[in-house]
Amino acid sequence: MRLEIEAALSYDFQDMTDLLLQIEVARTDGQTVLSDGLSTTPLKEFRRIAAEAGVGTRAWLAAQGQVDLTYRAVVEVTRPAVALETLSAVPPRDLDAVDTSFLLPSRYVQSEVFDAVVTDEFPGLSGGALIAAARDWIAETFTYVAGASTAATTARDSYDERQGVCRDYAHVLIALARAAGIPARMASCYAPDVDPPDFHAVAQVRLEDGWHLVDATGMASPDQMAIIGVGRDAAEVSFLTTMGATTMLFQSVNVTR
Amino acid sequence: MRLEIEAALSYDFQDMTDLLLQIEVARTDGQTVLSDGLSTTPLKEFRRIAAEAGVGTRAWLAAQGQVDLTYRAVVEVTRPAVALETLSAVPPRDLDAVDTSFLLPSRYVQSEVFDAVVTDEFPGLSGGALIAAARDWIAETFTYVAGASTAATTARDSYDERQGVCRDYAHVLIALARAAGIPARMASCYAPDVDPPDFHAVAQVRLEDGWHLVDATGMASPDQMAIIGVGRDAAEVSFLTTMGATTMLFQSVNVTR
Amino acid sequence: MRLEIEAALSYDFQDMTDLLLQIEVARTDGQTVLSDGLSTTPLKEFRRIAAEAGVGTRAWLAAQGQVDLTYRAVVEVTRPAVALETLSAVPPRDLDAVDTSFLLPSRYVQSEVFDAVVTDEFPGLSGGALIAAARDWIAETFTYVAGASTAATTARDSYDERQGVCRDYAHVLIALARAAGIPARMASCYAPDVDPPDFHAVAQVRLEDGWHLVDATGMASPDQMAIIGVGRDAAEVSFLTTMGATTMLFQSVNVTR
Amino acid sequence: MRLEIEAALSYDFQDMTDLLLQIEVARTDGQTVLSDGLSTTPLKEFRRIAAEAGVGTRAWLAAQGQVDLTYRAVVEVTRPAVALETLSAVPPRDLDAVDTSFLLPSRYVQSEVFDAVVTDEFPGLSGGALIAAARDWIAETFTYVAGASTAATTARDSYDERQGVCRDYAHVLIALARAAGIPARMASCYAPDVDPPDFHAVAQVRLEDGWHLVDATGMASPDQMAIIGVGRDAAEVSFLTTMGATTMLFQSVNVTR
Repeated sequence: MRLEIEAALSYDFQDMTDLLLQIEVARTDGQTVLSDGLSTTPLKEFRRIAAEAGVGTRAWLAAQGQVDLTYRAVVEVTRPAVALETLSAVPPRDLDAVDTSFLLPSRYVQSEVFDAVVTDEFPGLSGGALIAAARDWIAETFTYVAGASTAATTARDSYDERQGVCRDYAHVLIALARAAGIPARMASCYAPDVDPPDFHAVAQVRLEDGWHLVDATGMASPDQMAIIGVGRDAAEVSFLTTMGATTMLFQSVNVTR
Repeated sequence: MRLEIEAALSYDFQDMTDLLLQIEVARTDGQTVLSDGLSTTPLKEFRRIAAEAGVGTRAWLAAQGQVDLTYRAVVEVTRPAVALETLSAVPPRDLDAVDTSFLLPSRYVQSEVFDAVVTDEFPGLSGGALIAAARDWIAETFTYVAGASTAATTARDSYDERQGVCRDYAHVLIALARAAGIPARMASCYAPDVDPPDFHAVAQVRLEDGWHLVDATGMASPDQMAIIGVGRDAAEVSFLTTMGATTMLFQSVNVTR
Repeated sequence: MRLEIEAALSYDFQDMTDLLLQIEVARTDGQTVLSDGLSTTPLKEFRRIAAEAGVGTRAWLAAQGQVDLTYRAVVEVTRPAVALETLSAVPPRDLDAVDTSFLLPSRYVQSEVFDAVVTDEFPGLSGGALIAAARDWIAETFTYVAGASTAATTARDSYDERQGVCRDYAHVLIALARAAGIPARMASCYAPDVDPPDFHAVAQVRLEDGWHLVDATGMASPDQMAIIGVGRDAAEVSFLTTMGATTMLFQSVNVTR
Repeated sequence: MRLEIEAALSYDFQDMTDLLLQIEVARTDGQTVLSDGLSTTPLKEFRRIAAEAGVGTRAWLAAQGQVDLTYRAVVEVTRPAVALETLSAVPPRDLDAVDTSFLLPSRYVQSEVFDAVVTDEFPGLSGGALIAAARDWIAETFTYVAGASTAATTARDSYDERQGVCRDYAHVLIALARAAGIPARMASCYAPDVDPPDFHAVAQVRLEDGWHLVDATGMASPDQMAIIGVGRDAAEVSFLTTMGATTMLFQSVNVTR
């Protein structure tokens, strides 16, 4: 599927501020960036670095006053649909160094607490079948409530409240996966049918043949997502992290197919 | 300083269990491993992988029944003492990919909450002078209480309670550093004067010329620590992470100089 | 001081819903209600009960559809200004049954955690002098940020973040008082200079000669507050608690002197 | 059923310390105290006050050095067994002042979060039938783990971890009841088959004909419990609350029928 993406951000920084920006589509498996470009008002500095797990890039910027950023990309997503239920887990002892990291608890995903929930809710399941069941359980049980979560909301909060937005659905699914011994991380992405239009976040889980995108909100399928980056959770795929006070002036995301 | 290290662990696993072990001294700057060896009761599998940030190694094991592990090492620590107060911070925008990761909040270090504490407690300070002041503030204000923390205790808990063990002192210092825009992580290590003898954990902060070990408990100076590994916080430097039920039978750590 | 009060609330309830309303000025020490009245759109039921600690009243209502409530009161506040610093604490062992309850931790006030903070920040102080110092410390250290807190925000959150609104300032002061062995509770009230105009919440502490209102936000002095009710914390003085889904249509509070 | 109760406590207080003790069986409905007595080493002060909701008593003590307390009682419990499933809830709008308080969230029971859990797990149920279903769900799903909880463990922690001791089972049941609009509180009590022998804590819920004891651990039935006191949660029925540092030397509880 071909996606046309445009993201426009506008911020005001009272003082000279360092910014970590992560909005460019990653050159990674399952998607080809046919063209992309980032245009900005003049910045003091701009430097790209590799993002988490080597997927995609972040950029360090320094800016003061109003900063307008526009990112446009055309991306061909070639990621095939998969039948999750048929895929096995990788035994933890066979995981490589990078994948091992995504078994451990993180800022918003206290996965060490979810052992009993996994046993209780999904008895007898493992691997992709467990992931599919967890995804379906979240989809059926949770209510999507815009504004339900804040920057402090964790997987435990969302699980207890049975509500949230895309980041929260993903956090709970990641927590359940890790508790079951399956590496899981958050992928930020662009997808066409996100409502209201915005950056999107989904879980990505490591099964026998690699990493698979899983969207418990049901808004996007793997062949509709252009991955920006991955991280342990929302703290590591934020589209903008600022080292100082910030005022958001404008933000829009448009993805069409 | 030359350190002679012996760590002995004994566990019982009812079922075949995958284990992630991280107890071997890292081959890294400031320390030379003159000799080391790990001996164990027979294991089903044993495989080493690189640990977080490429510092040291973890090992994946699979085992059932009683497992005895003994690690012995002789390490020459050549890390010089430094005057933290004289060192500048690196502007965030100049950080590389790996160091950037250690600016972000993590499982036990909700650093995004500590902005106001840094401003309130350490006005006007930055870089190494801020780190030294934060270390001294923790040392003076906190009470070292064995057993005060559990696997659920976070930097916020320890900060509010003004108490903890080495991991907690390190978590609070890491939180304050990150809130000030200074990359910080936890280093697990061996050190000779830890009381009671045990694995030790301290903060490590990124200043102008590299990473520096800082121990807010005052138990160890940089030239007395043999680093095992580093991670965002205690979740990423645990000496043993098990994928199933475990009974600890015995554990001892001895470090002599 | 004479206060003229008008509060207008308008809500919509999809289903027949039970409501607990607490907006009427209490007949209690230090204030005389010269006149007051509550007018509403037709309700299925309306019944007043005594509120917490016997101060003021709550009303149980049952309603469906749009409900408009208007409360008007004229209140003479005769509460004298006091020099908190001169007042002693009551030894806990001399407290009566009701006051004893307000020593214990509650939903938003995890006072058992604040022992070390009290010792650290206010060494050598006790009684009213401690309360005054805690009030001043909060006033100087905290930033009043409208919208900074949610219904989940606790005293620990506000303390760590050094920010909040009136309820949060009060929660932190209550936490510090209880940790020091001084009974403390939240008083909801009307006050003339609250900005923006709204219901107000302050701490009330039990010292040698009775309960004293203390406003760490500095918005109101005791002779300017008409108390509605008291409770362990915000959970017990909410102006409206609903047993079902609610949409707020309108709310205004006006207090003039 | 006739219960013979003996509780012995021994503590050491370095400084003169105020203590709030709550270990005497309440004179309340469903139980008759045939005889009881409290003997102690000499105390500086001793004074009884009414406990929460007027059920039973607390005592304020002041003591220094070693304090030994022994409480002995013979109690006839006449509380009948009831079929919870047949009992209706009281509409919240019909609750009196005291019962209304037990609808609100408290220190360890963040009941406002459990609305969705109640809807999700117990669809279509209300009143005693809901309580019985919640009790059975906890009994089946939770694991009783001695030492699993600390003084910081809340209903949310226990719910997420699906484990705990009697206080935790009670907290979760209280949370579910309040979320369903049913007043609920914690009752501390003596019961004969508690294993290991200790003070016991269970939920008490307000249904059509009054308050009913419900033990999700299955250790005790209502006709086997001698109530000491009631409170919003564990914070309000602690058998000993101290206003200073304490060392426990000894504690035993024996209840025989």
